[in-house]
Amino acid sequence: MLRLDPGEGRIRTARGFRVWEGGGEYNVVRGLRRCFGLETAVVTALADNEIGRLVEDLILQGGVNTALIRWEPADGIGRHVRNGLNFVERGFGLRGALGVSDRANTAVSQLRPGQIDWDSVFAAGARWLHTGGVFAALSDSTAEVAVEAMTAARRCGATVSYDPNYRPSLWEGRGGAARARETDLRLARHADIVIGALGLAGPGADGPRITAAEAPDAFAEIAALLPGTRILATTLRTVRSAGVNDWSAAAWSAQTGYLTGPDLRGVQVLDRVGSGDGFAAGLIYGLITGAGLSTALAYGTAHGALAMTTPGDSSMASRADVEALLADASGAVRR
Amino acid sequence: MLRLDPGEGRIRTARGFRVWEGGGEYNVVRGLRRCFGLETAVVTALADNEIGRLVEDLILQGGVNTALIRWEPADGIGRHVRNGLNFVERGFGLRGALGVSDRANTAVSQLRPGQIDWDSVFAAGARWLHTGGVFAALSDSTAEVAVEAMTAARRCGATVSYDPNYRPSLWEGRGGAARARETDLRLARHADIVIGALGLAGPGADGPRITAAEAPDAFAEIAALLPGTRILATTLRTVRSAGVNDWSAAAWSAQTGYLTGPDLRGVQVLDRVGSGDGFAAGLIYGLITGAGLSTALAYGTAHGALAMTTPGDSSMASRADVEALLADASGAVRR
Amino acid sequence: MLRLDPGEGRIRTARGFRVWEGGGEYNVVRGLRRCFGLETAVVTALADNEIGRLVEDLILQGGVNTALIRWEPADGIGRHVRNGLNFVERGFGLRGALGVSDRANTAVSQLRPGQIDWDSVFAAGARWLHTGGVFAALSDSTAEVAVEAMTAARRCGATVSYDPNYRPSLWEGRGGAARARETDLRLARHADIVIGALGLAGPGADGPRITAAEAPDAFAEIAALLPGTRILATTLRTVRSAGVNDWSAAAWSAQTGYLTGPDLRGVQVLDRVGSGDGFAAGLIYGLITGAGLSTALAYGTAHGALAMTTPGDSSMASRADVEALLADASGAVRR
Amino acid sequence: MLRLDPGEGRIRTARGFRVWEGGGEYNVVRGLRRCFGLETAVVTALADNEIGRLVEDLILQGGVNTALIRWEPADGIGRHVRNGLNFVERGFGLRGALGVSDRANTAVSQLRPGQIDWDSVFAAGARWLHTGGVFAALSDSTAEVAVEAMTAARRCGATVSYDPNYRPSLWEGRGGAARARETDLRLARHADIVIGALGLAGPGADGPRITAAEAPDAFAEIAALLPGTRILATTLRTVRSAGVNDWSAAAWSAQTGYLTGPDLRGVQVLDRVGSGDGFAAGLIYGLITGAGLSTALAYGTAHGALAMTTPGDSSMASRADVEALLADASGAVRR
Amino acid sequence: MLRLDPGEGRIRTARGFRVWEGGGEYNVVRGLRRCFGLETAVVTALADNEIGRLVEDLILQGGVNTALIRWEPADGIGRHVRNGLNFVERGFGLRGALGVSDRANTAVSQLRPGQIDWDSVFAAGARWLHTGGVFAALSDSTAEVAVEAMTAARRCGATVSYDPNYRPSLWEGRGGAARARETDLRLARHADIVIGALGLAGPGADGPRITAAEAPDAFAEIAALLPGTRILATTLRTVRSAGVNDWSAAAWSAQTGYLTGPDLRGVQVLDRVGSGDGFAAGLIYGLITGAGLSTALAYGTAHGALAMTTPGDSSMASRADVEALLADASGAVRR
Amino acid sequence: MLRLDPGEGRIRTARGFRVWEGGGEYNVVRGLRRCFGLETAVVTALADNEIGRLVEDLILQGGVNTALIRWEPADGIGRHVRNGLNFVERGFGLRGALGVSDRANTAVSQLRPGQIDWDSVFAAGARWLHTGGVFAALSDSTAEVAVEAMTAARRCGATVSYDPNYRPSLWEGRGGAARARETDLRLARHADIVIGALGLAGPGADGPRITAAEAPDAFAEIAALLPGTRILATTLRTVRSAGVNDWSAAAWSAQTGYLTGPDLRGVQVLDRVGSGDGFAAGLIYGLITGAGLSTALAYGTAHGALAMTTPGDSSMASRADVEALLADASGAVRR
Repeated sequence: MLRLDPGEGRIRTARGFRVWEGGGEYNVVRGLRRCFGLETAVVTALADNEIGRLVEDLILQGGVNTALIRWEPADGIGRHVRNGLNFVERGFGLRGALGVSDRANTAVSQLRPGQIDWDSVFAAGARWLHTGGVFAALSDSTAEVAVEAMTAARRCGATVSYDPNYRPSLWEGRGGAARARETDLRLARHADIVIGALGLAGPGADGPRITAAEAPDAFAEIAALLPGTRILATTLRTVRSAGVNDWSAAAWSAQTGYLTGPDLRGVQVLDRVGSGDGFAAGLIYGLITGAGLSTALAYGTAHGALAMTTPGDSSMASRADVEALLADASGAVRR
Repeated sequence: MLRLDPGEGRIRTARGFRVWEGGGEYNVVRGLRRCFGLETAVVTALADNEIGRLVEDLILQGGVNTALIRWEPADGIGRHVRNGLNFVERGFGLRGALGVSDRANTAVSQLRPGQIDWDSVFAAGARWLHTGGVFAALSDSTAEVAVEAMTAARRCGATVSYDPNYRPSLWEGRGGAARARETDLRLARHADIVIGALGLAGPGADGPRITAAEAPDAFAEIAALLPGTRILATTLRTVRSAGVNDWSAAAWSAQTGYLTGPDLRGVQVLDRVGSGDGFAAGLIYGLITGAGLSTALAYGTAHGALAMTTPGDSSMASRADVEALLADASGAVRR
Repeated sequence: MLRLDPGEGRIRTARGFRVWEGGGEYNVVRGLRRCFGLETAVVTALADNEIGRLVEDLILQGGVNTALIRWEPADGIGRHVRNGLNFVERGFGLRGALGVSDRANTAVSQLRPGQIDWDSVFAAGARWLHTGGVFAALSDSTAEVAVEAMTAARRCGATVSYDPNYRPSLWEGRGGAARARETDLRLARHADIVIGALGLAGPGADGPRITAAEAPDAFAEIAALLPGTRILATTLRTVRSAGVNDWSAAAWSAQTGYLTGPDLRGVQVLDRVGSGDGFAAGLIYGLITGAGLSTALAYGTAHGALAMTTPGDSSMASRADVEALLADASGAVRR
Repeated sequence: MLRLDPGEGRIRTARGFRVWEGGGEYNVVRGLRRCFGLETAVVTALADNEIGRLVEDLILQGGVNTALIRWEPADGIGRHVRNGLNFVERGFGLRGALGVSDRANTAVSQLRPGQIDWDSVFAAGARWLHTGGVFAALSDSTAEVAVEAMTAARRCGATVSYDPNYRPSLWEGRGGAARARETDLRLARHADIVIGALGLAGPGADGPRITAAEAPDAFAEIAALLPGTRILATTLRTVRSAGVNDWSAAAWSAQTGYLTGPDLRGVQVLDRVGSGDGFAAGLIYGLITGAGLSTALAYGTAHGALAMTTPGDSSMASRADVEALLADASGAVRR
Repeated sequence: MLRLDPGEGRIRTARGFRVWEGGGEYNVVRGLRRCFGLETAVVTALADNEIGRLVEDLILQGGVNTALIRWEPADGIGRHVRNGLNFVERGFGLRGALGVSDRANTAVSQLRPGQIDWDSVFAAGARWLHTGGVFAALSDSTAEVAVEAMTAARRCGATVSYDPNYRPSLWEGRGGAARARETDLRLARHADIVIGALGLAGPGADGPRITAAEAPDAFAEIAALLPGTRILATTLRTVRSAGVNDWSAAAWSAQTGYLTGPDLRGVQVLDRVGSGDGFAAGLIYGLITGAGLSTALAYGTAHGALAMTTPGDSSMASRADVEALLADASGAVRR
Repeated sequence: MLRLDPGEGRIRTARGFRVWEGGGEYNVVRGLRRCFGLETAVVTALADNEIGRLVEDLILQGGVNTALIRWEPADGIGRHVRNGLNFVERGFGLRGALGVSDRANTAVSQLRPGQIDWDSVFAAGARWLHTGGVFAALSDSTAEVAVEAMTAARRCGATVSYDPNYRPSLWEGRGGAARARETDLRLARHADIVIGALGLAGPGADGPRITAAEAPDAFAEIAALLPGTRILATTLRTVRSAGVNDWSAAAWSAQTGYLTGPDLRGVQVLDRVGSGDGFAAGLIYGLITGAGLSTALAYGTAHGALAMTTPGDSSMASRADVEALLADASGAVRR
């Protein structure tokens, strides 16, 4: 999606917007590419008009391979196919961040099973597939595309991660949180790793937020529901205000049991959007490079924290920045 | 619509947009209000989300009464109802202006006959109704709303103006220029004044542009098709480049015969979008104040020219600016 | 006034300013209109030049009815009549906000009794008059205009609120805080509700700031001085730094006794200017809709807090934002 | 004065302004300092508040010595003393540049004879005094200060130049163009060189603009009125549009007779404000360095032309740029 | 290089710069990628610090493959290795564009033969090598790297193009235009196509610019000097002002003889930097796709013209824009 | 140096930079001039190109006398002489500030003893020389220039202050922290006052930061090494995050023993760069005006704190601001 960002102001009185690209699953592959230096590609569809070409320009800047983007012919006004837009303001203090997505009838929401030749994607060497509940919620057919992709990935020996990432707006009028959870559970069964796993626990994503203290039990509950999943992970955030969050993370695997990441208190937040995706990117980087779950959790926590210190959905951090933060979170000057 | 404007750059590589409000019929009432000081209102519908509220903020700045806007409840992502977006770059030199509208499924396109109580609108004192081919092209139902409005206006003694204002993107896949012309002719029969009338002549709006020399004959042809119309008017533009246009206007009425407006050669253009609507506003102002067709044509020509000297769809001119331009088009300093 | 705002920098080294409109009493009616949805108008005077027209453009954006603005002919350089300018920087951390107003000889300061037909204003249905000590301090004649307005309002059955809102710069060389207090007390006797009432207590507005603990006694003292006033209200602010304030409010009425609003600690402040006016708007909204003093106090406290999270004098909040803050002040994301 | 500049937009709808410093006589000394490298100082007065300090910051950037600025204590709101403000938009095409000055009650307008120790100024080595009709029009006392300064300059052997520079807004209500001309003629008698001399000819500055063909006769007329003046000079401008001017200059002295400067046709104009002052700076530079009137005229013409190619009142040109333009006006790239 | 661009202002008084990437040879491959859709890569070297990473970010946005960039370890302050910076202002009217490059000791200037495995580059399928006189002028070793690359390209069957692109600053103190021409002639002998060929004619690049009328003879002269070159091409530009150029192009080959491209008179120029490179990209696209020299010349002329209508070194045009311009250069609106 | 500042973003993804001037020793004299009102000059060298002229423009704005700047002829591309550039981002929260200086081969680094006529500098009345370890680290010759200057200053009766101000990047490959300390100690022996003295203690500047508790002993150790120094001073900073620092200062002299400045906890930081230099300016101001070491320390601490509340290297504070902060650090509004 194209993110439109009014900076320190609000959408409703803006006279200008900065633009970024963003999207739950995309943000993860962008972080893996630009922060962690892995080659990544995005599988999506865009309407071929000036807006779609702007999104391409931003994705190119993100270093993400664009060869797997399907370009759909644009009708003049978006009657049949559009590009998604996401107006998001970052919030300040006790005024929370606020987003309005305008993403109906997007090209990507019309992706159907059979359109992507997943086997050739994985035959070309892809080692990891990341998808999740935002993509799966776009339409009934994208949920099936996600299943198709995960099945192909596992068949080809690639690792699969899934992040439920519940968005109320996508399920409004389509069954709400209950149907979202049902879909996520069905899809998560195809995943080796479930990130944002707490969204699947107990009453579901629109229940009260699960606390750090409740996380071990919640993981146990989810592990029972998803016997084929090797790793469960989650961020742990306490919103003191839009500008100050406590931030940590936790994970579980059969081998390690329950682990927690660095506990960062009082993190100053410039723009929190994308921090969960930043966490996912760091976690996957740690796992794909064989660093062990505890280190992966640290990478994820630190990268997610850095993503909150810059505007836009994506971090502007380097791996060196992540490692420096893990060594010393003081925010001292380097020159 | 919300207009997103990349300034001197292009949409496809923008990192920021200024925003304005705009729309063919709206621009006319805004010009009547802010340049010419008449009280005006807009009849439209908006989805009630942050984007719609931004459009409201811009309309309020435009001084246009918002009481007749219908606010439709927003679904989370624009599945059923949206607000229109219009990405437009202004062009430069031999690179023409370029627009991409993203306006399918808008609230206004879903307006249906019976939703607006037109009689009470006109009973409250409205003396003029302006509508046109952009609104009428949004959907089959908006064309009927236009008929309903024009019929009510005439019944209540208000004057009706109509501007065909052909937009290819709105008719793509719906019958194209031929069906547009058929619709415009059908609707224009309810109008006292047709602005942009040359679009109805001969082969229609996608034929070759009618020249100034051909205009008298074309007007005669249209007058024969629209026996109930008192006045036909048009702008006359020669695009030397995106930055330099020759600009004039012409009109016909039974009383006056064929008239031409001031002939402005080599007008420097900052942003041409909205200049036709600026012409309409000036023309209507002249007619509503009883200034006579020739003076009205001058007001329209001058106001349309001034609209090209500032960014955004609307002019930022005052009536005093319009009159000063008619007195002396030299562009000298005042201080 | 036109507010000129250097953003994160300082006036003395600025190379650009954003502009907003602002003014103590105006900010209240703007908040009532754009946040709370009530129809409001401003009674003021402006010099009719480009600066005045810019202020009008901003007031229109603010949704406030401009029909009661008196437009005074401008002399060329402001010898006789000007528009007020207010250069204000927002401060940061231990650098406080700083304002320089350039408001002598403004059109509004020259308003005289007899110029406004107050009876017709209230006959047209106005239910509430808000005025205060900034307007009254502009000149000897504006104090009398305030008396005239309040008298007319009460005669016509409208409620009257008054906010002393002491500005040292306006009384410099005219008797200072002592004369300001004398004037405010004289005028407040015409009010049903006095907001910012603590400024009238004890030694006056240039004495030490009255603490929350001292507020009940101070209210009792003021109530004795103003026997005709039904409600006294005040904000309670502790400035930890320009960027962090503790923020609450209190009120007194004979029926309810002393009440306090929500106690918001550690509110992050982007721009505090206008928060007191934001409080007044919320309070008045609560009272005018019959919500009760306690709820009105909560609306005022929340709206004033939100006004501190955006640049400019006015909040950019909606009533839904205010109510969401009262329900949960966590600053969590909505999307 | 502080110039507030809305860029490509208009004052009346601006949401931000860039700021520059400017003023007829000041612009000349700034040009002499930053373009031509001479040491210069400004004699003026400013109110000592944040706005005055911003003007100082801009003057320092201009390289002009600030030691002779009188700082007047500011009252809180500008009741007694203010700093001048100048809102100016640059115009575009057939929309002319437009300025609104807000300069009543400025500190400088209250300068009185006896406040500046002119003898010590010239004893310290000042070789040239430039003043003119803007300063002299601020008040009755500034005209006398100008006389005092010119008298002292001549007594001390410094050269004196005077530029009538008629501003209608300053004489509105004070006798208009007729009294302006009378004042200018009275003061110009103290000058060795009169720049902008055509403003003194025939019917005065609000008559029709004197054409290039009429200039020789007009100079002869003025020379007869000002027998003590050695040199008369003027710019010659034809405004084709706000964006395109023809630009030249002419001068007369007893030794050389009538001379014309380079004839620059079709000069593209970004912001014309200050070009006349730029002409004065180049002319004075040529004369002070003994380059001869013809060369001085060329410097003036070229520097004034370059001042029109950048925003703000002052040129951003170097002497090398001026000389390059005189050698080749093609606008070719250098790299 | 990182280009720093002060927008409509000048470097010497800027308070901010936009940044773009640019460089003679790079601009060509970027144009081939983003306008014409061919896969391209840049062979260069960058110092591995934040500045280098910013250049990478811009190159990624440019869609150009970064795999062949050599990253040199940065010393702290650029003692041994730097990234090139190019401060360039665009000019306006009779003020020409002006550039100051700060490019000594760059990583790329230290490239030496043997560091790039050219055979593997071409074995991977590269069909075209473009290099030129900017790269070759960076140091004695880069000239040899250019020879090495061109030799390898031809050995592997790739086509070679060379653009002398004389920059006086690079040869200052190293033999000037004479030695530049000698180097360019020596290197051009390895090229199939020489773009910007007129720089090699007659007295060399610092002589008077060769006119369109002289071009056929000049081509004949160069063809005699470069018997192995198949095609000679050049832009033909007449600088009317920095804002208006006449623009065309010419080419010669043995098969076609002398050909000229579209003759675009009075092209409005926003930023001319990079237009020659834009010409090269269009020409190469035409040739690589087998469109014939005449068509290739048209693509080059149109793309170069479009590059002048946007800021930055690169065009923001699409191939569709190029083709539309060739069909109709009127600058009309599309919407 | 020219400082390039990406605002709230990061260098590596910036599309624009604000520019400021900065440099350790320069920042001190700028603070003395603009905040404290003393006349100051900078002795340095610049390459005479557009970049150098931009630095001059910024220094002029800084009010610092430019007469002692040596202008070196620029070669075209910076082969022999350049101007220093400093890309610095301010950091946010747990992302620290980050700087990359590009300052090799600068004109100033090539200053040699004998080039500046120091005796005439001091004969003209200079009462204080401030220099330090950044200048001394630029090259072997600048260290000798520093010695030359300090020797001349003492010979002429001026006070000398020295600030080691260790920058790892300047000593990389030249002996590192050990050689830096050796140089600093050798030079500091020529100083009356050593600011930033803790950098000379114990293991040197790359050891662990000395705590407030250790400062008295460290001062004692340094005093023993520098018997000729009258005063030692230091800032005391605890970085809680890039956005929040605890900030104080300490000093020692034989007369006063160990003293500490105001202890400012939880200072909100917008841009910390230049705060140490701001401290030095305040300290020197206090000492030069004979205010006593304790008061001087307070001035330094407050001015350094204010420097952190605005962007850029320099404070934008006035002496009145400093004194107001010492009277009340609450950050309350003034208007």
